[in-house]
Amino acid sequence: MWHIYQFPLCPFSRKVRLLMAEKGIAYELQSARPWEGEDRFFAMNPAGCTPVIKDPDRNIVLSDSRAICEYFEETVDRNPQISGTAQQRAEIRRLVAMFDENFFRDVSGPLLHERMKKRLVLRQSPDAKALREAMKLAHDYLDYVDWLIDNRPWLAGSTMSLADLTAAAQISVADYLGGIDWTTHEQARAWYLVMKSRPSFQPLLSERMEVIQPPSHYAEVDA
Amino acid sequence: MWHIYQFPLCPFSRKVRLLMAEKGIAYELQSARPWEGEDRFFAMNPAGCTPVIKDPDRNIVLSDSRAICEYFEETVDRNPQISGTAQQRAEIRRLVAMFDENFFRDVSGPLLHERMKKRLVLRQSPDAKALREAMKLAHDYLDYVDWLIDNRPWLAGSTMSLADLTAAAQISVADYLGGIDWTTHEQARAWYLVMKSRPSFQPLLSERMEVIQPPSHYAEVDA
Repeated sequence: MWHIYQFPLCPFSRKVRLLMAEKGIAYELQSARPWEGEDRFFAMNPAGCTPVIKDPDRNIVLSDSRAICEYFEETVDRNPQISGTAQQRAEIRRLVAMFDENFFRDVSGPLLHERMKKRLVLRQSPDAKALREAMKLAHDYLDYVDWLIDNRPWLAGSTMSLADLTAAAQISVADYLGGIDWTTHEQARAWYLVMKSRPSFQPLLSERMEVIQPPSHYAEVDA
Repeated sequence: MWHIYQFPLCPFSRKVRLLMAEKGIAYELQSARPWEGEDRFFAMNPAGCTPVIKDPDRNIVLSDSRAICEYFEETVDRNPQISGTAQQRAEIRRLVAMFDENFFRDVSGPLLHERMKKRLVLRQSPDAKALREAMKLAHDYLDYVDWLIDNRPWLAGSTMSLADLTAAAQISVADYLGGIDWTTHEQARAWYLVMKSRPSFQPLLSERMEVIQPPSHYAEVDA
């Protein structure tokens, strides 16, 4: 069985877990804290970030969340998440990159730094200005999701794809950390409730990151 | 014919241009300066970064350099750059991510900020400490390239791949900006000279970014 080295609020690990669950691939969680700089973890992934997945029976170790998703897409036919024409697949990958790079840089990354790393590692108070800026930028991304959902059933087109899993994974971390204000985002909220209701999402919603508590609406699938 | 919206020192555009040249796909360059925030450019790519490619005849617009590379890999059979078993393809994609994300974050991104953006846009002097830090970290990546080339003919395995094109694209930008000290990196240097000698690389080496001049060794393929 695959082992996933991750921590509960890693948005990239969440994406991989959603994809594996949608495709019916079993896994076991292993705790990793890349910020502690453990040699054993860096030996598995010199890039130093989660997730890393390992199949101990076959001695396969893979890292980089997009490389991992492409690997499962190529090796497990069930429930494809990067499908359609080459142009449709490029659209899926464009949105994956937008949420993994831009949304993470602007929203989930700063929230993780201010509300998780400063609390658990640096023992500092969060910077109110940085939090406000992340929450303000979150609105721009939710506006874009609103617009996409006005024009398409799912983020990248007519079927659910890795774009939806990636966006939901990133947004779920921001939502856990109190960074998402859902008022004025009807379409994005409706889309996210559908994502949250999927069986693949349930294990993520029930996990907690140590002393950090999510807002009350975080795990509700009908609110 | 494809149009590539880019600027000469964009490492992600360089990667796409190398891939297209290796696959024999014709293109025409269009100048883009994403830092100027032009509406026309953001309309093509809401993520706001280069490259964007466009086929005006078919009205196809694609962005995100990895999505673009996967698109050409899927649509043009010639000279595949993401080939092999699923595990080998995951290794190629892992190294692509390492250079596009980590090397860019630590080396080519800071060098572009200090030596290009500060000169052309912000009209400031570069920060000597930031430059020293980027050049120091460049050694760690070149050590890793030395190690890979000690163990494999090419970065990701037995054949040239998108990993080599990506690493060479990123390193070439750092080298243009004077950030690479090749002494003590015999294997990396030998590998990079082979990359520089490829016909696909020649157009990149002859281009200049306005008033910014590269060091004398930059375009030499036998030095």
